[in-house]
Amino acid sequence: MTERTAVRVAVDAMGGDHAPSEVVAGAVEAARNDGVIVLLVGDESAVGAELAKHDAAGLPIKTIPSEGVIEEGEPPALALRQKPRASVLVSTGLVKKGQADACVSMGSTGAAMAAAVVLLGVFEGLDRPALGGPILGAAPRTVLLDLGANVDCRPSMLVSFGVIGAAFARSYWGVANPAVGLLSVGGEAGKGNRQVREATALFETSGLNFVGNVEAGGLAAGSVDVAVMDGFAGNIVMKLAEGLGDALSDRVRSQLEGRVSEEIVEQVVQDIYEVSNVAETHGGGPLLGVKGVAIVGHGRAGAGAVRRAIGTASRLVESEFVSSMREDLARARERLGV
Amino acid sequence: MTERTAVRVAVDAMGGDHAPSEVVAGAVEAARNDGVIVLLVGDESAVGAELAKHDAAGLPIKTIPSEGVIEEGEPPALALRQKPRASVLVSTGLVKKGQADACVSMGSTGAAMAAAVVLLGVFEGLDRPALGGPILGAAPRTVLLDLGANVDCRPSMLVSFGVIGAAFARSYWGVANPAVGLLSVGGEAGKGNRQVREATALFETSGLNFVGNVEAGGLAAGSVDVAVMDGFAGNIVMKLAEGLGDALSDRVRSQLEGRVSEEIVEQVVQDIYEVSNVAETHGGGPLLGVKGVAIVGHGRAGAGAVRRAIGTASRLVESEFVSSMREDLARARERLGV
Repeated sequence: MTERTAVRVAVDAMGGDHAPSEVVAGAVEAARNDGVIVLLVGDESAVGAELAKHDAAGLPIKTIPSEGVIEEGEPPALALRQKPRASVLVSTGLVKKGQADACVSMGSTGAAMAAAVVLLGVFEGLDRPALGGPILGAAPRTVLLDLGANVDCRPSMLVSFGVIGAAFARSYWGVANPAVGLLSVGGEAGKGNRQVREATALFETSGLNFVGNVEAGGLAAGSVDVAVMDGFAGNIVMKLAEGLGDALSDRVRSQLEGRVSEEIVEQVVQDIYEVSNVAETHGGGPLLGVKGVAIVGHGRAGAGAVRRAIGTASRLVESEFVSSMREDLARARERLGV
Repeated sequence: MTERTAVRVAVDAMGGDHAPSEVVAGAVEAARNDGVIVLLVGDESAVGAELAKHDAAGLPIKTIPSEGVIEEGEPPALALRQKPRASVLVSTGLVKKGQADACVSMGSTGAAMAAAVVLLGVFEGLDRPALGGPILGAAPRTVLLDLGANVDCRPSMLVSFGVIGAAFARSYWGVANPAVGLLSVGGEAGKGNRQVREATALFETSGLNFVGNVEAGGLAAGSVDVAVMDGFAGNIVMKLAEGLGDALSDRVRSQLEGRVSEEIVEQVVQDIYEVSNVAETHGGGPLLGVKGVAIVGHGRAGAGAVRRAIGTASRLVESEFVSSMREDLARARERLGV
């Protein structure tokens, strides 16, 4: 056994609504408190100016220069060609070159995904990375995937999502044998559309702890460790939860206001937000199925979320998430004969 | 113009968790107050005993004998053959024979649907009836369909759902030119899976007031009059809303209990239920795309919901929902060349 050395995390200092200030602030906190080495990738003068606001001398932080940033909404493939030195590309490139163990960006998800696909690659059997994570606060341990990256899926891709989700649940939470369910319209085997029925047959020979169908109503109850769905269904689940949470917050607030203390109103509304919305406790989620640890966080992330995203990256590196996922995927493909 | 005569509604007195007592009670209320003629279909002695509990003499109620009832969970096709005189079949048969203008059942949805398909038929271009209605209390005017009857849909079926939903919004609420949206993963045209992209091209030539994609987050905001989706997605939307509503009710209740009056707790929890759950204000929804008015209500319906379901039936008959839907569907199919 080799001695464990500190994890090196490349952080895209220029990505996100509050970059570089909040990103640098979060990175400084991580470097100070969490035993990680931070490689801050960005415009040198801008990053230097932000670093100067913190008492960062002596912390394990190194600045790596980049040029430009890919904005939310830019077509990723084109942007990658036009800005070859953009911060997200340089960050991801550090992982490819072995100079960092993981990368983190709060910038454009599309750009981070494109950079990861081009520089790190995705495992065989996948078209592109999956997006996923424990997005329902009501079921904070249930990993849902895919949440929108893969809207048209072959049945075998759903099995790959199950393998990836199980690897995540094992690495990140230490769940020994994660229960994997397939989102469908009824609990009984055979209930579902053609895609689900075909995937069910594959899941049953996949070697996963496949527990059959899970209905959407069971997601909020946390009845499985991993809930698999195609990106079309997953995106609907994620956005409906957010939309309903917003609608309910408004209603509950108007019901309570003036009748109970403002403190209670805020607590209840905050609780609804946490139950229904994308959990931000992890700061960001990994691009799943990528041959490397690449974390994408919320564009609105503040320093705390940035620090937590760096922590998530570090934890996935230490738990050898990628090599575990690689082995599991290879084993499942062998069993399935695909 | 012919003089308007009272609408005749055949009511399956034996279907539902609280049949025949609550069904008969609701039917009596409708006959007494709502200007409808009720044909109560059921076991003569059981229905007679229930009628005797009410002051029903002189009301426009007639009992039609049937034998047996198809229970929730019985395979509908088999049950239809084994129980040819079952209450739901006799009720639906009255519509077919022109002896009733509409039928209502609180029993098995599968049985009601099978009876409607066999006896009334579905319009060309549909495989089976669609389930739908304004299921989100947060958006009480937005008709969602399909909610689970058609889990695998050809793109042209989605257009038919749009036509049907628009006919419903026009007939039932008098919306002149209902805005029809297609549930997808992004607001921009072209965002979506293959099914959505193919359907979008058809919608654009359908003659509907097609407003493009609607995201799941916009459903709760009521941004369209009709939201079209396949039955797989629709069922997920419906069940997730219910599941999240339950989870949120529990959380809000535990946050509030002991801190505010029990009355406020109940009001808030009830409001969450109404916002997130299937709206019961209509008592039941029509089987959509059927060549006749056939309403299916919730199995748990009490007398009030039964009365409202009969009212919904009457309203759809008076607004000539079926003939309007027939014409609209034919026109759309002509435009689409299918």
